[in-house]
Amino acid sequence: MKNYSFKNDYSEGCHPNILDALVRTNLDQQNGYGYDDYSEEARKLIHQKINNPDADIHFVSGGTQANLLVISSILRPHESVISAETGHIFTNETGAIEATGHKVHGVPTNDGKLKPEHVQAVLDIHTNKPHQVKQKLVYISNSTEVGTIYSRAELQELSAFCKDNGLYLFLDGARLGQALTSEMNDLTLEDIANFTDVFYLGGTKNGALLGEAIVIMNDRLKEEFGFHIKQKGAMLAKGRLLGIQFLELMKNDLYMDLARHSNIQAMKIKAALKQKGSKFLSETFTNQIFPILDQHQIKKLEEHFDFYVWKKIDEDRSAIRLITSWATSDEVVDRFIKEVQSL
Amino acid sequence: MKNYSFKNDYSEGCHPNILDALVRTNLDQQNGYGYDDYSEEARKLIHQKINNPDADIHFVSGGTQANLLVISSILRPHESVISAETGHIFTNETGAIEATGHKVHGVPTNDGKLKPEHVQAVLDIHTNKPHQVKQKLVYISNSTEVGTIYSRAELQELSAFCKDNGLYLFLDGARLGQALTSEMNDLTLEDIANFTDVFYLGGTKNGALLGEAIVIMNDRLKEEFGFHIKQKGAMLAKGRLLGIQFLELMKNDLYMDLARHSNIQAMKIKAALKQKGSKFLSETFTNQIFPILDQHQIKKLEEHFDFYVWKKIDEDRSAIRLITSWATSDEVVDRFIKEVQSL
Amino acid sequence: MKNYSFKNDYSEGCHPNILDALVRTNLDQQNGYGYDDYSEEARKLIHQKINNPDADIHFVSGGTQANLLVISSILRPHESVISAETGHIFTNETGAIEATGHKVHGVPTNDGKLKPEHVQAVLDIHTNKPHQVKQKLVYISNSTEVGTIYSRAELQELSAFCKDNGLYLFLDGARLGQALTSEMNDLTLEDIANFTDVFYLGGTKNGALLGEAIVIMNDRLKEEFGFHIKQKGAMLAKGRLLGIQFLELMKNDLYMDLARHSNIQAMKIKAALKQKGSKFLSETFTNQIFPILDQHQIKKLEEHFDFYVWKKIDEDRSAIRLITSWATSDEVVDRFIKEVQSL
Amino acid sequence: MKNYSFKNDYSEGCHPNILDALVRTNLDQQNGYGYDDYSEEARKLIHQKINNPDADIHFVSGGTQANLLVISSILRPHESVISAETGHIFTNETGAIEATGHKVHGVPTNDGKLKPEHVQAVLDIHTNKPHQVKQKLVYISNSTEVGTIYSRAELQELSAFCKDNGLYLFLDGARLGQALTSEMNDLTLEDIANFTDVFYLGGTKNGALLGEAIVIMNDRLKEEFGFHIKQKGAMLAKGRLLGIQFLELMKNDLYMDLARHSNIQAMKIKAALKQKGSKFLSETFTNQIFPILDQHQIKKLEEHFDFYVWKKIDEDRSAIRLITSWATSDEVVDRFIKEVQSL
Repeated sequence: MKNYSFKNDYSEGCHPNILDALVRTNLDQQNGYGYDDYSEEARKLIHQKINNPDADIHFVSGGTQANLLVISSILRPHESVISAETGHIFTNETGAIEATGHKVHGVPTNDGKLKPEHVQAVLDIHTNKPHQVKQKLVYISNSTEVGTIYSRAELQELSAFCKDNGLYLFLDGARLGQALTSEMNDLTLEDIANFTDVFYLGGTKNGALLGEAIVIMNDRLKEEFGFHIKQKGAMLAKGRLLGIQFLELMKNDLYMDLARHSNIQAMKIKAALKQKGSKFLSETFTNQIFPILDQHQIKKLEEHFDFYVWKKIDEDRSAIRLITSWATSDEVVDRFIKEVQSL
Repeated sequence: MKNYSFKNDYSEGCHPNILDALVRTNLDQQNGYGYDDYSEEARKLIHQKINNPDADIHFVSGGTQANLLVISSILRPHESVISAETGHIFTNETGAIEATGHKVHGVPTNDGKLKPEHVQAVLDIHTNKPHQVKQKLVYISNSTEVGTIYSRAELQELSAFCKDNGLYLFLDGARLGQALTSEMNDLTLEDIANFTDVFYLGGTKNGALLGEAIVIMNDRLKEEFGFHIKQKGAMLAKGRLLGIQFLELMKNDLYMDLARHSNIQAMKIKAALKQKGSKFLSETFTNQIFPILDQHQIKKLEEHFDFYVWKKIDEDRSAIRLITSWATSDEVVDRFIKEVQSL
Repeated sequence: MKNYSFKNDYSEGCHPNILDALVRTNLDQQNGYGYDDYSEEARKLIHQKINNPDADIHFVSGGTQANLLVISSILRPHESVISAETGHIFTNETGAIEATGHKVHGVPTNDGKLKPEHVQAVLDIHTNKPHQVKQKLVYISNSTEVGTIYSRAELQELSAFCKDNGLYLFLDGARLGQALTSEMNDLTLEDIANFTDVFYLGGTKNGALLGEAIVIMNDRLKEEFGFHIKQKGAMLAKGRLLGIQFLELMKNDLYMDLARHSNIQAMKIKAALKQKGSKFLSETFTNQIFPILDQHQIKKLEEHFDFYVWKKIDEDRSAIRLITSWATSDEVVDRFIKEVQSL
Repeated sequence: MKNYSFKNDYSEGCHPNILDALVRTNLDQQNGYGYDDYSEEARKLIHQKINNPDADIHFVSGGTQANLLVISSILRPHESVISAETGHIFTNETGAIEATGHKVHGVPTNDGKLKPEHVQAVLDIHTNKPHQVKQKLVYISNSTEVGTIYSRAELQELSAFCKDNGLYLFLDGARLGQALTSEMNDLTLEDIANFTDVFYLGGTKNGALLGEAIVIMNDRLKEEFGFHIKQKGAMLAKGRLLGIQFLELMKNDLYMDLARHSNIQAMKIKAALKQKGSKFLSETFTNQIFPILDQHQIKKLEEHFDFYVWKKIDEDRSAIRLITSWATSDEVVDRFIKEVQSL
């Protein structure tokens, strides 16, 4: 029997509602390229949830694709984007943004979150015009790549700072559901829309087979976006595949329910580890946790579960990364907790 | 009741075997990024069909993506690609290839097919080195964008010409199934592999939800291709979605069966139109036909069927484009033929 | 003794006035990057000549550099440029424009000149949005690469067409002096400025060591151009070198005098050839002529002069290309004419 | 009377020998694009000085141009370059390298010099293939942007490290003369050639009007470099302008003499400041010095001299930057020293 894997939140297929919808709609003929009825309905539901019918919404296949599309469509050739050093675009996309011609400034942070002072520090060392690249865009992720989330106050402050400095704010929401359903969260999806110029809702890491929903709030960024989607190879002929999935996820708050479930499963494991005395690399309240264990404990857990050993702490101890998903069952969590208790 | 649409071959979802497999495998945990078991099995089946276990096989989402990925991974910055003017990369991809930095030379042809003399003509006017771009790649489609196919002799000759001139040959197989199951075809999939440096098998237009299988034959083009997939935003976290589909399509020759079906449906309609005295814009033997009809006939057919009016011929007549697919039923074809007979 | 070369108009150094100025100003300390006094004065003289003090003027090293800079600064990623097939950017710049990400549409013409109908023809086959690239810029050269020139009516008409169709008009003036001093010309430099959004005055082919003066008329294209110059490696630390040269060329109409001289020398040779009965590949009135000679005549002339054999006409005859320059002396022209007369 | 400027080493024109040569050769007809006799002779002299007749040598206009040309010609799309954070390509070229599609990793250093451990640290955090960009090139400057130089041992060690790790080593020699004639230097030009895959000799900052000589040592990097020069707009029609200058600079070691002169002038000023008790931001032995002065002293010096206030040290003191050049006369240095002594 295979070990259960906590390596990531995209090990399984998709939520059954999506499969049902695919089966149900399969032979219905639809327009291609995102002009199908399902995509239209999904857009309407998102419009309702952000309380803004004017946002432009485009469905694409994945996060790197969404990031490079949005950023390259916004920036002129001499403009750059600011990211945390842990930001997906800075370190985990094989130079995808630079491949479209733009510098990414990586900023060291404690917790994966950009604050106005981080951005200001980049601006401060780029005043020698036109010999230095011009900053025009701030990229953040919520939840971040290290599992942390922005508070309402933090996002509001960063948003205001960007406006004051002529910078656009782009939020990577590959795990936005997890952020907004975290027990520590005080942001709504409507807030996310209001505080950013453009953001996306991640489907791949929250129960879809694939797909991210790019939501463009700022009118200036809406113009002719479809050309960019096509040019970057991101326009699916059968756009219905994305529309159907987001339609199902948006119905009855399934999207948030799945994310909340993944958070809860992680928090149960976290509680068990804490009870056992474990420390953590960082305190997170979403579906990623980074407990510090000794080699013996790690070996023991590896007998029945797969996960990444994330960072060596000292000779004896390492932090591991555990990620739960919409599909992580109570039974698996209970088994893992039992193993923890027996360590 | 909606009209039946002959507008394209991607109006429906996917073949039921694929949906069954998605349901069956849904909760099986798998590695991401194309390292899942299904992708591995699908690769093995393709290896068998091309009779070459050394080819590198990568699954990506769509045709434009496959084209820009392959071409940009091969060419150095000063190199260019030669295509028919009807070639998808020349005219229908929003400048996707140029966006990666490379010129596409468009060559006028009668039938959408490149011959050695077409390529030679481009080479002949680019001898002023280094003031002119250097040609390094020849791009063809089979079946072509206008529904025609290459004969074995034609492909062999073009392949030899490319080798003699230090050019790579890349075959866009968005509709390769239709080409290889055309009644006029004398090529095998193994031939395709042997005569090209790289090609792909299209899934989107032949019964998959999405997906193209890039097959790299030339060892020099294999190196580090995965980096390019990731950088261009083409690497799906749940690569299983592509693997499962190609696994189903490759089993028991389903891929060829679906393509053959789409060809047969088109040929039945063609025969009916011929019997009725229709001329055609070009003589095709795949799933695209271009009959020339008068305005009255077109209006009549439009009452029950959707299709594109493709090209004005004279005051009274236009060519229309009819595309059939794996999902075009006998019942629909019969209905259409009845309409034709009553014109 | 070396043969005199009619191969091009950049075989010699520069006009002596420029050398004198370089010597005279050599140890005067100046700001770098185009902020020197000479560049400022040169800009003022150009402002006077185009009768518009608001134009932005930037000096760069060469024509390909000017072309790629201007075009890439204007276009968004999904936009393209239309050029004659003989246009320098289409065929003689090693894919420089495509290397910045943009498609160049090459249009066949009789005489190297774009007319509204040529542009309209490109627009007509690019209506399938967003699947096709969007045309945004029209590129022309005056004089053209084949020695022809635009009349005032032609340029005005093209300019109006571009405005009506939301297209920018960019004029490559590598040989603008020759165009404006041609005996057939009815355009002024002020007209050029008024009819285009951006153009440049070529120095390299008209008596400078190097340098082109980019003149931006359209306010929307002026913004932050300096960043592009720097990013593309086109910003000279000692911008004075360009400023000094254009200052000398603009003083007392030296620029036009040099161009007129080159035209006159070519016309004298043309007259002698006509008298001798020669035909020409095309009728030109600038410093490039394309007489058709037989092999014996060509051999004879090659004994004392260098030039390109441009195009084979038939078994016995070829067109040659003769280019005169600011430095082509009366003595050389007389010698050449004597040779012609003795053929 | 204008203040004398110590702001940079490109405030004046060029060494008189160059002007003499330009005048002397002005009307001699030459081939374009770097195929002139002067460029050929200059190449021969460089071949002699590096003791290697097989190096490929190309002359281009400036440093940013040389950097973007070399780097973009070497790297495949998924490859990146490592630089010190102070490196010109990382911070002072308006994103020129990223504009060609490649990530630049900026590494913090104490003194502007890259050591193997700096490079190793970048490699260590980029092991997740193919999700992270692949490092392929190391970029260093000598002298560095902060005036420091590499010792023979340091360069040898870095060179060996690069070879061991499959990395190319590229040396930006915008101020290579100053490095090699520093009193602390133990490297020869031949060493530079042997320890790098490609480097360039800067002319612009050492007595030329413009120009850098790119020297390609590694055979694999030589192929078809001319195409890249043309494509990036860096090929001068009158390549003679660059050839003549490097010919003059290479004759009789003028290049090294000019650089040594600039160093000596800086060292005289440094000695005077030291005697006066000044501290320095960093200890340099080339033509850039960074003395720390109080506001009163800075004000006083600014009455007669121009320079940049480089970095605030505390409420009262700032480091200033003084740069001397081939053209900084003894008289000016004496005047400055007198001012220093009177502070």
